[in-house]
Amino acid sequence: MKISIIGTGNVGQTLAASLADLGHEVIIGTRDVSKKLAEVDKDASGNPPFADWHKAYSKVKLDTFPNAASFGEIVINAVHGGSSLDALKMAGASNLKGKILIDIANPLDFSKGMPPSLIPQLSNTWSLGEEIQKTFPETRVVKTLNTMWCGLMVNPALIGGGNHLNYLAGNDATAKEKVIELLQEFGWRKENLIDLGDITGARASESVLLIWVRLWGVLPHGPFNFNIVR
Amino acid sequence: MKISIIGTGNVGQTLAASLADLGHEVIIGTRDVSKKLAEVDKDASGNPPFADWHKAYSKVKLDTFPNAASFGEIVINAVHGGSSLDALKMAGASNLKGKILIDIANPLDFSKGMPPSLIPQLSNTWSLGEEIQKTFPETRVVKTLNTMWCGLMVNPALIGGGNHLNYLAGNDATAKEKVIELLQEFGWRKENLIDLGDITGARASESVLLIWVRLWGVLPHGPFNFNIVR
Repeated sequence: MKISIIGTGNVGQTLAASLADLGHEVIIGTRDVSKKLAEVDKDASGNPPFADWHKAYSKVKLDTFPNAASFGEIVINAVHGGSSLDALKMAGASNLKGKILIDIANPLDFSKGMPPSLIPQLSNTWSLGEEIQKTFPETRVVKTLNTMWCGLMVNPALIGGGNHLNYLAGNDATAKEKVIELLQEFGWRKENLIDLGDITGARASESVLLIWVRLWGVLPHGPFNFNIVR
Repeated sequence: MKISIIGTGNVGQTLAASLADLGHEVIIGTRDVSKKLAEVDKDASGNPPFADWHKAYSKVKLDTFPNAASFGEIVINAVHGGSSLDALKMAGASNLKGKILIDIANPLDFSKGMPPSLIPQLSNTWSLGEEIQKTFPETRVVKTLNTMWCGLMVNPALIGGGNHLNYLAGNDATAKEKVIELLQEFGWRKENLIDLGDITGARASESVLLIWVRLWGVLPHGPFNFNIVR
């Protein structure tokens, strides 16, 4: 399948590498291709420059936001939550029209110190997922994978035998079914994929970040996720 | 131990019954004792009137908020989140001074329809737990047990062999240690009690309600809680 990833950071790279390894045609979108490839410094999180990663994954194409969005049958938003809307607007509504947009971003607000809170106007009674769906009404937004470290998104078997939670929220049932198929390629078991209903469910899954960032601070080092006990 | 419960609802009753069965001296506080005992209708959630429950648990005393708060060595806030501050102010700062206040309430906002959201000024960058601690600076507030159905609070063994999560947050380490001892009487295992740090951790544990109420709507009927997979 042709899959576009909007965002060149660690999360976008992790998804791109895994999807390419699974045999998909993957393109990553960025604001400025030559500038991105010319970067030589580590990013804010200490990850090596994009070009270093790209040497190992040259089968993943890099192009502008609009060209990348135009290429994919499915588009994945892997841009920081606070920049997602700008990036998607640059990608262009016409390039996203009718497509499934998997939104894995979170509206984290680092402006008030650590741990981050959520951007006030995109939390509690609203969400980034809803804002994206409202901004691109002809795109089928599915919120998923946003409640964990990116290494777990593409390889849930890393912990607990893969038996832990991933939520979905979106208005289009067919789109969610397609996304579930893709998630199963990563190793997600259907019984661990919880459908929260329409895109308002993004309010709930994005809010998980508030407890996630606290636990990230107090738990012993290593990937973790939640499971439901009943 | 002498334990006061502020709030006569289903949650307060469940805690009172369990604590009395464990051998504690328990008193429940209410606004108006004779009015509470005279109620004959079910409450908004369909629970029988307080007097019906009280017949089976007459060893639990019922008294005014101030008298109840004055009695206990530990006080438990089991009033709805939106009414907690009013009730605790009626109980009186002098009656709560120096004491451990276990806050199990959540600032749920039902005014915008179902599922509830959180009261805006008590969420994300602030919390009910913090507001209570700020209002009663000489009381040692410990936020805990607020992320589950009340039946699980007092009997975690009901599901998953008792192997699921309960968070604590509070500024006083000694108070948290005392609360952990009480939680262990209910059957909580120490390894499942996650200390989120100071009372700002209440922002995180209260936010769990946003995903909890969604899951309550989509999961098969029955009690549930979360566990950490790592």
